[in-house]
Amino acid sequence: MAEKKGNQSVEFKEKIAIKAVSSTVGKKEGEGPLKDKFDKIINDATAGEDSWEKAESKFVSENMKLVMKKAGINENDVDYIVAGDLLNQNNGSTFGVREFNRPFFGIYGACSTYGEGLGIGSILIEAGMGENILVGASSHFCAAEKQFRFPLELGSQRPLTSTWTVTGHGAAVLTKGGNYPYIKGITTGKIVDFGIKDANNMGAAMAPAAADVILNNFNDFGIGANYYDMIVTGDLGYVGKELVLKLVKDGGFDISENYTDCGIEIFDRDKQDTHSGGSGCACSAVTFNSLFYPKLKNGEMKRILFIPTGALMNSTSTQQGETIPGVAHGVMVEN
Amino acid sequence: MAEKKGNQSVEFKEKIAIKAVSSTVGKKEGEGPLKDKFDKIINDATAGEDSWEKAESKFVSENMKLVMKKAGINENDVDYIVAGDLLNQNNGSTFGVREFNRPFFGIYGACSTYGEGLGIGSILIEAGMGENILVGASSHFCAAEKQFRFPLELGSQRPLTSTWTVTGHGAAVLTKGGNYPYIKGITTGKIVDFGIKDANNMGAAMAPAAADVILNNFNDFGIGANYYDMIVTGDLGYVGKELVLKLVKDGGFDISENYTDCGIEIFDRDKQDTHSGGSGCACSAVTFNSLFYPKLKNGEMKRILFIPTGALMNSTSTQQGETIPGVAHGVMVEN
Repeated sequence: MAEKKGNQSVEFKEKIAIKAVSSTVGKKEGEGPLKDKFDKIINDATAGEDSWEKAESKFVSENMKLVMKKAGINENDVDYIVAGDLLNQNNGSTFGVREFNRPFFGIYGACSTYGEGLGIGSILIEAGMGENILVGASSHFCAAEKQFRFPLELGSQRPLTSTWTVTGHGAAVLTKGGNYPYIKGITTGKIVDFGIKDANNMGAAMAPAAADVILNNFNDFGIGANYYDMIVTGDLGYVGKELVLKLVKDGGFDISENYTDCGIEIFDRDKQDTHSGGSGCACSAVTFNSLFYPKLKNGEMKRILFIPTGALMNSTSTQQGETIPGVAHGVMVEN
Repeated sequence: MAEKKGNQSVEFKEKIAIKAVSSTVGKKEGEGPLKDKFDKIINDATAGEDSWEKAESKFVSENMKLVMKKAGINENDVDYIVAGDLLNQNNGSTFGVREFNRPFFGIYGACSTYGEGLGIGSILIEAGMGENILVGASSHFCAAEKQFRFPLELGSQRPLTSTWTVTGHGAAVLTKGGNYPYIKGITTGKIVDFGIKDANNMGAAMAPAAADVILNNFNDFGIGANYYDMIVTGDLGYVGKELVLKLVKDGGFDISENYTDCGIEIFDRDKQDTHSGGSGCACSAVTFNSLFYPKLKNGEMKRILFIPTGALMNSTSTQQGETIPGVAHGVMVEN
């Protein structure tokens, strides 16, 4: 049985091991700073399919096959699939996992989905629901721009606060025990709404939720910033990062020495014209899997607080003048 | 620790009690056969808001407050909220639960969402994640028609295979132990795709997934149709019900004596012009809560297999010629 910690955290009793991870990305990601760390780069934005949406599902199925192979299991060994994405009605995941024929929990946390998935996956292991839980999250730049903002064909200019949705899929296989990085506990996010309405400034919309999770994690576990080798948010980019630093400082902690954001790590700001950084469900998923998981595995780092961040709007809510609430899911990964 | 059963089921060790349920519905539902059983009827389709989408969120927040009141708890007693709906990016739930300020897991299972939520909520209790889990699912006829088919203003004629999306919200508070109907186990659905492409024939698209869950539940637990007082699917309507009877019979079991569908129970076919029956996330949620939960509570029934059913398409997938995969989540509720 998990142990409740403070207001919104738990520490797991079981050792929730992250047995394997994998990252499949698109061309632009494959030209960035992490290009040598990804498992697979698909240079064709349609991945051989006839639409961007079908391409996203192809990324899902290909990368899930890859992570199962890396974990040494096959589809029949998977007890549950927990997955989500940004497409309306989770269609990237739905059509992507259809062929696997295993029990499926669809989840939606916008770009925090990988954090939500690792959390729910951990709870499944803790509850004794099975041996192998397959978790995944995806996004696709072209499909996301078309759905949330403007069709690419319009050639709309992107403001400097905007981020670039990562094309890719990150997956993990969770199991119980073994010599792998493990999930010690989670701090599940509340919906936090500071009243931001600009769909081109997601970093500002999500930063308060991320800061809230960081502060609650510290307080719930009675720890400080120096507990972690690194605190890693999902896709706040440069604008959101500054806000998190300020909000966490206002809460009494200085994380300026050991904090970064996946949206900053995945692209080269100067050379790749991605403005405020990377975003999308895949941003945190592929960056954690390719950059940070290996550091935990090889002992270079011992403790990471990983916090995928999401903006909970849709195109209708924006048109109706609603604000953009944020959510973030904290995952304590240690080794 | 939950006990794995067969291919895709578990039996919980803890007594996962459904402490309270509540149903808030719209005008049409409030004129149907269950009108005296609902907790609250909101006759204004916009619920005092300025859009159907905002109205759906109002249904969510009002009904969640109601179920907390019926369970004798307040927001601060809730450990996790698990909720979802049909709107793009789960916005009905997101904006509906925003004010509660509690840890939130957004889920998406189309119209099977209430079943998925009761399943994940049970797992949270089993894992020791807290004392009170708030589960909810909603849908809104006007918002769903606009999003998935045609704006109501067009006055498009609906074919006889079509179902009527229920306007409403169903919620439950799960806790551990106590003298309440409880969730003995779950049979989590796989994605099942028989190649149906007609978005006006959801019953046929979802029936194979429902039949698959029923057969796996029987086989995983080594039971037959007569184990249950009633087997209740979510929103297959008249067309889907006939298919389920046939598919389950092909699998070796006759459920013709104790099977019904919430989409058939919620509307009066002759008087309400709803064609093949009710549908939407709220259909199974409000029908189970108002019609079947009371029968379990007062001892009229002892065992129900409740199987909300979902169709995993979106408007883009339909336009791109994709099929409509189905999913269903089986929940064994006993007393």
